[in-house]
Amino acid sequence: MKDLKQRSLELHLKNKGKISVISKIKLENADDLSLAYSPGVAEPCLEIQKDESKIYDYTSKGNMVAIISDGSAVLGLGNIGPKAGLPVMEGKAILFKEFGGVDAFPIMLNTNDQDEIVEIVKNISISFGGINLEDISAPRCVYIERRLKKELDIPVFHDDQHGTAIVTTAALINACRLSGKKMEDLKIVLSGTGSAGSSIARMLKDCGVKEILAFNRKGVVNKDKYAKYKFLLKELLDDNIISYPQSPTATLSDIMIDADVFVGVSVANVINKEMIQSMSDKPFIFAMANPNPEISYEDAIAAGAYVMGTGRSDYPNQINNVLAFPGLFRGALDARTKNITEAMKMAAAKAIALILEDSELRTDYIIPSPFDKRVSYEVSEAVKKEAQKEKA
Amino acid sequence: MKDLKQRSLELHLKNKGKISVISKIKLENADDLSLAYSPGVAEPCLEIQKDESKIYDYTSKGNMVAIISDGSAVLGLGNIGPKAGLPVMEGKAILFKEFGGVDAFPIMLNTNDQDEIVEIVKNISISFGGINLEDISAPRCVYIERRLKKELDIPVFHDDQHGTAIVTTAALINACRLSGKKMEDLKIVLSGTGSAGSSIARMLKDCGVKEILAFNRKGVVNKDKYAKYKFLLKELLDDNIISYPQSPTATLSDIMIDADVFVGVSVANVINKEMIQSMSDKPFIFAMANPNPEISYEDAIAAGAYVMGTGRSDYPNQINNVLAFPGLFRGALDARTKNITEAMKMAAAKAIALILEDSELRTDYIIPSPFDKRVSYEVSEAVKKEAQKEKA
Repeated sequence: MKDLKQRSLELHLKNKGKISVISKIKLENADDLSLAYSPGVAEPCLEIQKDESKIYDYTSKGNMVAIISDGSAVLGLGNIGPKAGLPVMEGKAILFKEFGGVDAFPIMLNTNDQDEIVEIVKNISISFGGINLEDISAPRCVYIERRLKKELDIPVFHDDQHGTAIVTTAALINACRLSGKKMEDLKIVLSGTGSAGSSIARMLKDCGVKEILAFNRKGVVNKDKYAKYKFLLKELLDDNIISYPQSPTATLSDIMIDADVFVGVSVANVINKEMIQSMSDKPFIFAMANPNPEISYEDAIAAGAYVMGTGRSDYPNQINNVLAFPGLFRGALDARTKNITEAMKMAAAKAIALILEDSELRTDYIIPSPFDKRVSYEVSEAVKKEAQKEKA
Repeated sequence: MKDLKQRSLELHLKNKGKISVISKIKLENADDLSLAYSPGVAEPCLEIQKDESKIYDYTSKGNMVAIISDGSAVLGLGNIGPKAGLPVMEGKAILFKEFGGVDAFPIMLNTNDQDEIVEIVKNISISFGGINLEDISAPRCVYIERRLKKELDIPVFHDDQHGTAIVTTAALINACRLSGKKMEDLKIVLSGTGSAGSSIARMLKDCGVKEILAFNRKGVVNKDKYAKYKFLLKELLDDNIISYPQSPTATLSDIMIDADVFVGVSVANVINKEMIQSMSDKPFIFAMANPNPEISYEDAIAAGAYVMGTGRSDYPNQINNVLAFPGLFRGALDARTKNITEAMKMAAAKAIALILEDSELRTDYIIPSPFDKRVSYEVSEAVKKEAQKEKA
């Protein structure tokens, strides 16, 4: 069997990329042409001119999502730029289609200026029913998402922040179900306080978690260093999402003692076996740094991890965004919501978790497979239900 | 049979628009996912980062055209705006696909500002191998096209200008073949001096035509009114494309006398039977105002038109842009040209004309049908050949 890298290059080269735009209707004779184009096409145009909401009836907008990226934080590759980032965004587009039945089109931006990005997206949003921001570096991604959520009337979602948060929450819900631990009793250590970590912390707090301690490349987060923190972290502290350790000089090893959960969205090898051994009974490890987690699967299990989840497809418990975003957009598009709300994200997390029955849950199976056909449907139904509740 | 308008509405409603984005590769198991997305997708990304030209090998860019419009001059409907214009652009996208095998995606712009449009298109151009400007009002369309041609390294083409010019030229070439008239002897009257008229006049001059007189809503073009003319018309005069009538008070009736050809890209009912009767022997009438031509088909024939062409599919000799743009882009994309040059446009016009053998030509068949399978292939081959010549 050939090397994965070589096979991926060959697959991309042979097909010249991964996406294609096709016609949903036939175009075989003059009558077809007169219906789909001139002169018949004037009618749907005039109907939309009279009532703008009819753009959802007569065009593909209602099922079309723009995948927007400037290539500044692509996968684990970093700032490789918008050209080199395109294969990832085409990949995202086909995941949208295959897992959610959502049409998605990648738009790579030739600028990193956050205000310019907001203006461009607003100016090109008409043919899209939703906006998925992807692989834009922090903190710009947060600024861009917040402004677009306010200024556009279609759902805007930054998957790197919230997709990860939804699936991590689902995994935690099920680890609690299996272990008998309760959200409100958990002590959680979060490694990484950027856009993903920030969204995870907020969702966990919404789940009832009371104690989240945080660690980042500058060390353990404590009040003394407040002035040095970036705005995302400042917000987490101001909103009382993150707790401080009692000692201002506490290290990561110190705060890991008696912790129930480690959540990593940071870099490889941040924790070690000894730290896991110092945790409470039945510790959960979600080590999602890509491609190399905060501790290897083997080491985590050897050190006594009760549940070990990573971002990788070659180990159990893959915390994979593809469990969330296709169904989430499917539901939001079907319900034609103007926003993806916190409640919708929580509904999605619960739907992913509850796909697994009590009897199915195992320590190496706390999250469904990306290829589990039930996931996207259940997520979309949960999101639609929540949307209806919010409209009512 | 139901009314065309009703059938068009129903077709659009039933399918929710006309385009869909699909995957060119299968995505059925974890291995597929690891090749198309993480971690395998990192390889094509890194290859493109090393050599930007590889974006054509590993992504869909090389076959993807953006259809850019602000909805300011849509079909015969005028400035209906970007939302109401979307059905037309989706129609254009499926024409690209069905007739040229080109993937095309509509981007509707929420601004009419010409400099902003240029900046947006430049900033979103990465995922596209070509730009087709569509239904943008004059003179902005000309400004936008000229700047983008200069500032982008992919082909940029404004179909409303040049598509019409290419197909009109093809029709004229064949009308000459059939009638025995020669380009250099023709006296042509052009009604309409906007972006389409201007492009037609330039192409006809390039074909060897020596005498083109022009008429627009302000009357017959003559030197006295120069100061009042807009820049497109000023350029035509400065470049000696358009000739003046000898009398400064000449009317359209006056300049039609002894003309060999009438070319209309203006409005309905500009000419009448008497004018045609005053033309030279075997007059050609190309009356392309949509949906109602400058004179009706029946009246033109009754007045003695040797050849009568319109933009309509329900009469013979349909001067339809779909004969040009799919093959033109097919050829330009295949040859990976940075521009669509004047010579390529001329090669396309000749290819369209020469599809019909001498023995096939009739006064009511001087231009192939849009459904003639040979057209797009022959046009693309001619454009590729010209591109190779220009590179050499």
